[in-house]
Amino acid sequence: MIPESIQRFIERFSRLPSIGPRLATRLAFHLAGRDAVSIEELATSIRALAALERCPRCFFFKQTGAPLCSICANPGRDHGTIAIVEKETDLISIEKTGRFKGTYFLLGELPERGILTDTERARIAHLARYIDTELGGMAAELIIAVSQNTFGDFTAEALKQELKGRARTITRLGRGIPTGGEIEFADEETLGSALVGRN
Amino acid sequence: MIPESIQRFIERFSRLPSIGPRLATRLAFHLAGRDAVSIEELATSIRALAALERCPRCFFFKQTGAPLCSICANPGRDHGTIAIVEKETDLISIEKTGRFKGTYFLLGELPERGILTDTERARIAHLARYIDTELGGMAAELIIAVSQNTFGDFTAEALKQELKGRARTITRLGRGIPTGGEIEFADEETLGSALVGRN
Repeated sequence: MIPESIQRFIERFSRLPSIGPRLATRLAFHLAGRDAVSIEELATSIRALAALERCPRCFFFKQTGAPLCSICANPGRDHGTIAIVEKETDLISIEKTGRFKGTYFLLGELPERGILTDTERARIAHLARYIDTELGGMAAELIIAVSQNTFGDFTAEALKQELKGRARTITRLGRGIPTGGEIEFADEETLGSALVGRN
Repeated sequence: MIPESIQRFIERFSRLPSIGPRLATRLAFHLAGRDAVSIEELATSIRALAALERCPRCFFFKQTGAPLCSICANPGRDHGTIAIVEKETDLISIEKTGRFKGTYFLLGELPERGILTDTERARIAHLARYIDTELGGMAAELIIAVSQNTFGDFTAEALKQELKGRARTITRLGRGIPTGGEIEFADEETLGSALVGRN
C-alpha cells in the first residue's frame, strides 16, 4: 500500500537513535511532499558527513584534510588539562558552558557491562601515549566527565587505574543538585554528594 | 568549533518536523561516526523520495510511473465510499485499523484560520469533479476524517457545504472516550458526544 521508496526510507531511518517508526513515517511523507531541490540539499548534507575524519589526537571530528580538530589545533587552549568525555554531544555541552579552556579526549560509548570495550582500551592507551610523548609524561589535570551512573563510575575507576601517575590530579565532575532541582526530590546519593561538595 | 558539514546538517535537519536542534545534533554525530556505505544508503533513500508523484485521483503518493496509487488502483476497494483525510499519516492510521474498505481523498494541512487555503479549495473542486465524472454525480458516502478540533470542525462544515448533494450521506468520525480513557478525565464535550454516540 505504501510506495516502496517511502517504505525503504522508513526502514532505514527508524533504526537511527531517537527516531522510531512513527517519526520516520512522518518524515518520509513530509519529505516526499517537498520540492526536489530541498530533498537534494538534505541528501547532500548527509553525504557530506561521510567525508569527516576523527582528530588523531582527541577523536572528535575534524574538517577533512586538517591535521587536527579546531580545539586541538587552538594554541589558546590549555593542552595539559584534558576532559575525558564519552561522546561528541558531551563535548558540545561542556563547550557551551564557556567555563572550560582545556582540551578533550573522546572515549566512545561506555561499556554496558563492567568490562572495558576494545575501543576504550585502545583509546586509553592512545591518551597515555599522547601524555608520554607530548606532555612529558605528566598532564596537569585529567577531568573525567562521564555520566554519574554505574557504568560511568566503573569507567572512571578504570581510567584512574590506567592513567595513575600520568596526571598531577585526576578529578571527576561534581555531583550535586541540578540547577532548578528541589531538595525534596533529590535522591540520598545526590543529596549526600551535594553536602560533601558544598561551596 | 564544530566542523562545517556537521553544522550544515544540523541547520537543515533541525527545521524538519519533530526534529529540533538537539536531535539534529545527536543524529549528525551519530551519522558522522558511521561507515560510508550506510551513510550513502540513507542519502539514497532520501533522494528516492524526490521521484514520488501524487496520485491524480486522491493525492496520496504513488509509485513513480503508475497511473494511480495502489489504493485507487485496487478494484477490490469500494470507490464510492471516500474518507477525506488531512494527511498521509492519517490515511496510514485508518488503513491499520483494517476496518475500512473504501478509498481516500487527501485534503492537505488544515487552514490555521477560519478560511480555506487555495490548496484545499482546489482539492475540494477536484473531488467534486471526480464524483461528477466517475461516480455519476453521487458518492455513496463521504466520511470526513479530520481532527476533532476547531480547525477540523470548520473544515468539516466547509466540506459539507461544498459537497452537499454529491453524496448520499456525509458523516464524520465518531467522537467519544478513547480506548483506555478514563471517564473522570474526559472533558465535557467529549463525554457529551460519547453519550450521544453510545452503542
